Amino acid sequence: MITLAYARMFQDRLDGEHGLPRTRLAELAGRFAEVQGEVRRRRAAGEYGFYGLTDQGETVRQISAFAEGLGQAYDHVLVLGIGGSALGTKALLNALRRPGWNELDDEGRDFFPRLTVLENVDPTSVEAALRRIDPRRVLVNVISKSGGTAETMAQYLVVRGWLEDALGPAASRHLVFTTDPARGALREMAARDGIAALEVPPGVGGRFSVLSPVGLLPAALVGVDPGALLRGASRAVEAAEADDLVANPAALYAALHWAADTDLGARIHVLMPYTDRLREFSEWYRQLWAESLGKRVDRNGRVVHVGPTPVGAVGATDQHSQVQLFMEGPFDKAITFAVVDDLGAEVAIPPRPDLPSDLAYLPGHSLGELLRAEYEATAAALARMGRVNCTLHLPDLSADTLGEAIMFFQLATGYAGVWYGVDPFDQPGVELGKRLTFAAMGRPGFEDAVGGGPARGADREDVSP
Amino acid sequence: MITLAYARMFQDRLDGEHGLPRTRLAELAGRFAEVQGEVRRRRAAGEYGFYGLTDQGETVRQISAFAEGLGQAYDHVLVLGIGGSALGTKALLNALRRPGWNELDDEGRDFFPRLTVLENVDPTSVEAALRRIDPRRVLVNVISKSGGTAETMAQYLVVRGWLEDALGPAASRHLVFTTDPARGALREMAARDGIAALEVPPGVGGRFSVLSPVGLLPAALVGVDPGALLRGASRAVEAAEADDLVANPAALYAALHWAADTDLGARIHVLMPYTDRLREFSEWYRQLWAESLGKRVDRNGRVVHVGPTPVGAVGATDQHSQVQLFMEGPFDKAITFAVVDDLGAEVAIPPRPDLPSDLAYLPGHSLGELLRAEYEATAAALARMGRVNCTLHLPDLSADTLGEAIMFFQLATGYAGVWYGVDPFDQPGVELGKRLTFAAMGRPGFEDAVGGGPARGADREDVSP
Repeated sequence: MITLAYARMFQDRLDGEHGLPRTRLAELAGRFAEVQGEVRRRRAAGEYGFYGLTDQGETVRQISAFAEGLGQAYDHVLVLGIGGSALGTKALLNALRRPGWNELDDEGRDFFPRLTVLENVDPTSVEAALRRIDPRRVLVNVISKSGGTAETMAQYLVVRGWLEDALGPAASRHLVFTTDPARGALREMAARDGIAALEVPPGVGGRFSVLSPVGLLPAALVGVDPGALLRGASRAVEAAEADDLVANPAALYAALHWAADTDLGARIHVLMPYTDRLREFSEWYRQLWAESLGKRVDRNGRVVHVGPTPVGAVGATDQHSQVQLFMEGPFDKAITFAVVDDLGAEVAIPPRPDLPSDLAYLPGHSLGELLRAEYEATAAALARMGRVNCTLHLPDLSADTLGEAIMFFQLATGYAGVWYGVDPFDQPGVELGKRLTFAAMGRPGFEDAVGGGPARGADREDVSP
Repeated sequence: MITLAYARMFQDRLDGEHGLPRTRLAELAGRFAEVQGEVRRRRAAGEYGFYGLTDQGETVRQISAFAEGLGQAYDHVLVLGIGGSALGTKALLNALRRPGWNELDDEGRDFFPRLTVLENVDPTSVEAALRRIDPRRVLVNVISKSGGTAETMAQYLVVRGWLEDALGPAASRHLVFTTDPARGALREMAARDGIAALEVPPGVGGRFSVLSPVGLLPAALVGVDPGALLRGASRAVEAAEADDLVANPAALYAALHWAADTDLGARIHVLMPYTDRLREFSEWYRQLWAESLGKRVDRNGRVVHVGPTPVGAVGATDQHSQVQLFMEGPFDKAITFAVVDDLGAEVAIPPRPDLPSDLAYLPGHSLGELLRAEYEATAAALARMGRVNCTLHLPDLSADTLGEAIMFFQLATGYAGVWYGVDPFDQPGVELGKRLTFAAMGRPGFEDAVGGGPARGADREDVSP
């Protein structure tokens, strides 16, 4: 079970006059009944659709059967998606498939199937991926909730052309779509061309969808158990039924981070796992936290321009990159460490003859011990400098625990939406950029997107040198 | 030549009452003689050692000869390093070796030598790398300026043991160190064991060292021309000799970002290249900007707690992750786009029969056109929302241009140090964490690092649930 250690959010565990006063916790706990009530009301009204992802028994059976049925037919799974259609799958892959372990079979060959996520329209990436992949041995999973995402649809047209050049009409058997059950261009093409298509549940937005078929299908195709992911997620949802704030870790996480932002000006929220295997998890968290909480207006339509800025870091690596700033810069950050009790691997630091005395302290320890000591030292040093921080303790990096961690942050985001007073499920700020892109690409009906005003000026007029 | 388009830093090119007033530019330009003078004085005094990296003719000849001499002896280059000993090399590799292009030879096999950078002590990463790599065919480059970095030395002991298990005494021929010319454990072991060792120039700190042997050797070993990198860097240094602020792009970049931070509260500095090939460049920039400018005291010893927080993003991908926050959240960001005129690849979006009308606008364009349209749309949309932004235009992603881009940001950092009034070359804030790590690992002489005070409390006392 994942636990949250939060003592170092408070003044009484930080040096100097920094952190939240301990009395603030009682105030937050006193207001929690109201917050929990709002979440329950909105959940009943269908707004918090991601809670329902724990109840997908039939979907899991279908996905597992589909993945098994493919057997040895494919060497490679190619996912076309962007944002919420890519980041969750990348996080799962990074955490659950260890490079060089699961990717190599017993004869040292690459483990099959491999999985590539194409999440950009950079021609160098797309061209490189299509050079590496054998079209006869690939399954392409095209993921777009709306079925019309410009980047993903452009990729799709390129990849479908590439498949047809190699395979002719059989190309459609190498495609599977994940999209809205009823609407959009992908759904239309699936029906017309007889392409397999899974459903993104209508009440679940892109950034909350990794535990839907969006992430479950790619995960299952490379051997991750979707049922285990959902078991962990269920555990997080059960913990979030607690009506006592301090017994509800996701709710507590949200409340403390909102308070740190509001009371202390700690508006930069850093997620710093001490393992390479959660690097992509931090990227997934960055979308979830940024896009859900960064809003112009509150629930009452008042202009507020709120939202913490999420930052990803990896320990121990970023001690040599970001920690100088975290230690000495402005008091504008709250740092969340994530540490894993059992990484499933250990490497001893061997003794050597004639070791310079400066290095004599290392042999006899292991890399895991050093990693753990570095986390503890960094958290303690930050506390000595008065910097608020907390730690998520994960027992391991199984599919079960990762499902719990994913749902923990989704729940925390849902709670944070209430504390910040914003709708965590919309993203109105990206519409203007989309319309301007459509206008530039000549899509009919978007000619008027380009408005007047000073911002219309070309950005090439002030150029240095 | 790299150019900086900076119109959208100013009120007269942003909608609403946002951005810097145009008069601020004249004020900054008026103060620039003083800033340039301070940089020149400190440079003469040896503080700005990185300027001298353009003058390494002999080093380049040695490195090129060394790399050529290795010929076909190695399939794999393994770099052991962290922070400034890793991030620059990763940036070079990401930008200059295109995945699937340069990594595959004409017969579709992996391009040799491959290069792996180990920058953490996560045992899963280290174990996985050593499983994948053949010790008989690897050259290990151990990089630590001090020669005693805990993480790198732990990796070194593990890797040297692994080499000796496979190769016996011949292991030392598979090692090359990059370290201080005179001091430290690595230098001592190199001399004693007859291991090849290159020098980190004494006046060049880790985060400014990618254009020293720290980055030049790994680059040369995988086929990047070190001379081309330095030619580009020289161009950036020449441009920084201009005494007119608007003709000196690195100085202008620093001045505008300091003003945006100080005047507007835009203390989060986002670097968002529109290509996957500069993703690691952003990580390199994050260290440079954070560790150089995030400081507790100014040059006069006054406690200031300053420093912008750098954030990395990639376009178009992060339009679906971060741009909602950039558009609608607090006015606390200045965004730098980096766009590349010629990515060296292009992919056409092919026509299809029976295309749903929603997608009819795509065929006839290319992925590169879409990527460019998305950048222009995003920059314009941000301007419409009053968000300060600027753009670095890169002609291509050659070694020459990348060298120029690296030096551009190093120069900008040197100037920003003067505007912020801090020493951009120290990192005193990481010492406490190092001492606490040594104490935990039982290194003699560090027992007293663990002090008293509230922060000494265990962080396991407040745990949820």
